[in-house]
Amino acid sequence: MPHSFTPIASIGEFGLIDRIAEIVPDPLEDKRILCGIGDDAAVFRASPGRLQVMTTDTMIEGVHFDRALTPMAYLGGKSITVSVSDIVAMNARPALATIAIGIPRNMSVEMVEALYEGIGEACTTYGLKLVGGDTSSSHALYITITMIGEAADDSIIFRQGAREGDVLCVTGDLGGAYAGLQVLLDQRRAMDELGKEFEPDLEAHRRVIDQQLTPAARLDFLDVLSEMSIRPSSMIDISDGLASEVHHICSSSDKGATIRVTSLPIDPLTRAVADQFMDDVDTYVFYGGEDYELLFTVYLEEGERLVESGQVAIIGEILESSKGVQALSPDAGLIPLHPAGFDHFGDSFSENGV
Amino acid sequence: MPHSFTPIASIGEFGLIDRIAEIVPDPLEDKRILCGIGDDAAVFRASPGRLQVMTTDTMIEGVHFDRALTPMAYLGGKSITVSVSDIVAMNARPALATIAIGIPRNMSVEMVEALYEGIGEACTTYGLKLVGGDTSSSHALYITITMIGEAADDSIIFRQGAREGDVLCVTGDLGGAYAGLQVLLDQRRAMDELGKEFEPDLEAHRRVIDQQLTPAARLDFLDVLSEMSIRPSSMIDISDGLASEVHHICSSSDKGATIRVTSLPIDPLTRAVADQFMDDVDTYVFYGGEDYELLFTVYLEEGERLVESGQVAIIGEILESSKGVQALSPDAGLIPLHPAGFDHFGDSFSENGV
Repeated sequence: MPHSFTPIASIGEFGLIDRIAEIVPDPLEDKRILCGIGDDAAVFRASPGRLQVMTTDTMIEGVHFDRALTPMAYLGGKSITVSVSDIVAMNARPALATIAIGIPRNMSVEMVEALYEGIGEACTTYGLKLVGGDTSSSHALYITITMIGEAADDSIIFRQGAREGDVLCVTGDLGGAYAGLQVLLDQRRAMDELGKEFEPDLEAHRRVIDQQLTPAARLDFLDVLSEMSIRPSSMIDISDGLASEVHHICSSSDKGATIRVTSLPIDPLTRAVADQFMDDVDTYVFYGGEDYELLFTVYLEEGERLVESGQVAIIGEILESSKGVQALSPDAGLIPLHPAGFDHFGDSFSENGV
Repeated sequence: MPHSFTPIASIGEFGLIDRIAEIVPDPLEDKRILCGIGDDAAVFRASPGRLQVMTTDTMIEGVHFDRALTPMAYLGGKSITVSVSDIVAMNARPALATIAIGIPRNMSVEMVEALYEGIGEACTTYGLKLVGGDTSSSHALYITITMIGEAADDSIIFRQGAREGDVLCVTGDLGGAYAGLQVLLDQRRAMDELGKEFEPDLEAHRRVIDQQLTPAARLDFLDVLSEMSIRPSSMIDISDGLASEVHHICSSSDKGATIRVTSLPIDPLTRAVADQFMDDVDTYVFYGGEDYELLFTVYLEEGERLVESGQVAIIGEILESSKGVQALSPDAGLIPLHPAGFDHFGDSFSENGV
């Protein structure tokens, strides 16, 4: 055992990843590798004219989900969606996946079957083939998906590439997944208090609960871009929360940005949930995460065409890097937007322990 | 929650994998996929003339290893070796990998760095690039490696393909990893009993301990085969124990086999450890696993050339399927060889809990 013990929380998840990247051999030494750690997925040349992208994501019981709140089939589907979303964020299409799964003793064959029914359905939805896996017994349920996607040579879109004057656009509504999580946690608390007398009341909040439990990756939106001949200059999926993702695009592209808070696309039900819990709905959008929508940058004219077609919202502009990343709201004016998304190793650990 | 609860132990790991394979879409529907679940790695066509193989493996604290017995750098190296061994068993070369890691709160930054130093060294040894990963906090340490390997179109060797009259060959010595595990467990027991007064005595058993903690995948042996222009008709790596692997080759190839127990290559130190613990050394070889040597089938003449060059041992013959899989020993004569390798979900769970 080493003599010093530096807690991982003291350097955080991104600090740890930086340390790891310094230790292992630099993947870019291999000229076929176009991108290693630091984007939604790694990119490498499989053959002349064809690129592959590769991503891996894990969901762990008690860290990323609570089994009591998560039907197994939904969990299976969501675990596939998380990786498809990373592939889509590179403007690539999912092709193959492997699954490593750790199964605790209190899970039955029927539960594992339900999980794989969700996985199988998601594979069909996204045109993905499951080619292998590893099953182990474990202390808690965990699922690691590794996915390969494909793209033509010039179609990959990185986080870097945002241009000054571009508009920032998002697909879909934001903050809903986090609102759904709040509803589920509230029901869980009521269930714990009332025991058998508790009758869950989920129908009124069905839409945000679905956004939490059965999100969809926006593979469909790649067709929209392609049909409208629009190629974003940068793109990322919104998994950790909008604030974190805007910062990723800006730091990768060496740019700044302003986000107009009044332009954020938010479902009225998400607003209602935030009001019910006396939360600021903007924090759901900026820091909630798990929306699996796409954030991207395009020329203003392209953004306007996308808005007209009803496909996206323009939420801000790309500026020179010295401007930093700021949020503009009627109440507060222009204030710095902090990048804090969810950090598994930080103090937010137990808060996000569902 | 489903109404019935069938324990996973009642159908076993392979039973569970069969159920899963029935639920998810058949990968072979995609004509580019040559092999899905059921070999050491999946095989798919990346481009005309080039095949890729893909495998995923997990190591979980308390299931596959005991942190008290396993230096972090060794654990990192071994986790890479396990997957490289699967790639090599397909006659392919490792190219890229991703790592998903779950880190418990009692691990320090220094421990994670040591782990990745082992991973980095192994990447350099095998000519492999780490292109991505996922880090989470978790209850116990787990490491999932997913690896992509490459091969020319006609060079992949499957488990199926063994021909009647072929000889069964193995590289290296067998049973050493399990002997090393016994020594480590014994030292652990002594440490628990004696506390601080205990002085570990590992030097005398260094070779088998190394086979347990720092095994090497036989990437080097692919060059031997290539230089001698020998192409095995089937191949598999020995991860679960020789008995299990012989059964995999025989069932995939629809053949039977006889293994000559007197021909098993066993290091004298492995024999000495088995004697010390009053075990039958053959059970180490047949059921111990983790040797990461290669088991393959070739024509008798090819096997003899490999034996002459000092590279392998011939341990048996491939027969027609009706003969079953048997072991021939001077004491017991010809007796059925049971396939039981390690089953994570069976009763052997706690026995292998290191």
